Amino acid sequence: MSKLLIVGTVAFDAIETPFGKTDKILGGAATYIGLSASNFDVESAVVSVVGEDFPNEYMELLKKNNINIEGVEVVEGGKTFFWSGKYHNDLNTRDTLDTQLNVLADFKPVVPESYKDSEFVMLGNLHPLVQLSVLEQVENPKLVVLDTMNFWMDNALEDLMKVIKKVDVITINDEEARQLSGEYSLVKAARKIEEMGPKYVVIKKGEHGALLFNQDKIFFAPALPLEEVFDPTGAGDTFAGGFIGYLARTGDVSFENMKSAIIYGSNLASFCVEKFGTERMQSLTGEQVNERLEEFKRLTQFETQLD
Amino acid sequence: MSKLLIVGTVAFDAIETPFGKTDKILGGAATYIGLSASNFDVESAVVSVVGEDFPNEYMELLKKNNINIEGVEVVEGGKTFFWSGKYHNDLNTRDTLDTQLNVLADFKPVVPESYKDSEFVMLGNLHPLVQLSVLEQVENPKLVVLDTMNFWMDNALEDLMKVIKKVDVITINDEEARQLSGEYSLVKAARKIEEMGPKYVVIKKGEHGALLFNQDKIFFAPALPLEEVFDPTGAGDTFAGGFIGYLARTGDVSFENMKSAIIYGSNLASFCVEKFGTERMQSLTGEQVNERLEEFKRLTQFETQLD
Repeated sequence: MSKLLIVGTVAFDAIETPFGKTDKILGGAATYIGLSASNFDVESAVVSVVGEDFPNEYMELLKKNNINIEGVEVVEGGKTFFWSGKYHNDLNTRDTLDTQLNVLADFKPVVPESYKDSEFVMLGNLHPLVQLSVLEQVENPKLVVLDTMNFWMDNALEDLMKVIKKVDVITINDEEARQLSGEYSLVKAARKIEEMGPKYVVIKKGEHGALLFNQDKIFFAPALPLEEVFDPTGAGDTFAGGFIGYLARTGDVSFENMKSAIIYGSNLASFCVEKFGTERMQSLTGEQVNERLEEFKRLTQFETQLD
Repeated sequence: MSKLLIVGTVAFDAIETPFGKTDKILGGAATYIGLSASNFDVESAVVSVVGEDFPNEYMELLKKNNINIEGVEVVEGGKTFFWSGKYHNDLNTRDTLDTQLNVLADFKPVVPESYKDSEFVMLGNLHPLVQLSVLEQVENPKLVVLDTMNFWMDNALEDLMKVIKKVDVITINDEEARQLSGEYSLVKAARKIEEMGPKYVVIKKGEHGALLFNQDKIFFAPALPLEEVFDPTGAGDTFAGGFIGYLARTGDVSFENMKSAIIYGSNLASFCVEKFGTERMQSLTGEQVNERLEEFKRLTQFETQLD
């Protein structure tokens, strides 16, 4: 079984959607990635930082999902990273109401000794220098996946380019791909981003699915059409967790296998948005994931009569 | 071999895109539908109207593609329907610069005697009463597909509802589906539209592909990711022509076969946008369509290692 190392935020979120609002609940990129990847029974560890205010029950929740939390530093007297946002009616756009970096401001990630030989590394959305520091502590990983966002393109582009250069796969959304590449066409954007380092580019299009690029090869995973999206928070991280979780479980990093990996990413993300925060991911069973895989097949697989 | 009857505009278009502009060129819903369906070697006929100004070479072009034009009325002294539009930089939106109904204003469609027993009927975008009139002239068709647009929802909703009630399949875009149903979720929108009459609802999402709905079944055909979209004019009609052309060719109107039909629709539409107007469709070969079908398979078909 491959080891999966995840770096990213473990945080408090307060979320408002057209369907309701929450107080501070469990959030953070590493949380969603870890919970998502846990569906593949991989050995995973999270590297992150929280404050003294972080409830023990959340730590227990991660542990219960077989996530090693040795690398989650608890800063005495510190406060946990907090994000608050409000989604618009279409759920495709949101306003950030509040961001409190707190302990994240001085975060120096330390990879647990037992995970320095991780074959799979997921660099969740964080300052690129933090991502780089984690990468430098890992010996010879088989696959490194980077998630990032426009904030770092705007504010730390030079550092971001350094980490982009060192990863195998990058996952970003369509607008970010356009920003990073300066190309409107996603086909051209992916090609330019491949030139920056990653051999594989995954472009997330939210409700419109995700594209996987590698040289002249393209694969597309739709999002599952849902009657209702309740809360999109964490969907992108859950997608990434499903992607790398499936790859870590199968140990196969071929393009063909990455096709299934983004289907699993989309599969898990489709659950994440059904309830607030991590709620749905906490109650998710393997059987439900398998049933939804069948839905994805019915949604996409076809046989023509004219071949 | 099934007969396919197509009603829709045969027109002049003048198009401006970020890549250039055209003078008056061949356009019209029925033109695109007919050219697209001609790739399936079906016996098809177009019912439409043009003016005396319509060049004979365009008529010959339709005939050369095995499209029966007995039902294309030529109005003496009349002028052909003209549309002019300019696409914005993202090619997803456009402004209509000019619309001259001309001979279309008094169009009374007459279905040729030899096509009154058509098994397949494609009601291309036109006034719903014209669509209805065509439908009333056909005896017992096997499958009727309706294409329409928001203009008729705004200006002739009552008539539109009459024709919607009588068709088997409706194809509309996502925003129109939302307008027609009053539902934001496309899953809910499709369900409501099914209640209006059509057993099958096809929702076109442009560069984001198309969804096919029937009761609780859903299938998704992506658009082929293209390096460049040159001119989107006619893509929706070409999609519809590929959809019904494939169904007419195979004679199988099951949901399973409709899956392939929307893949073919998407396949043909992906060619249409590569050049101005109908240019690409005129030079298209069966081999190219087959090659692109393989691209669609590589884009969408997958096998997981965890089944």
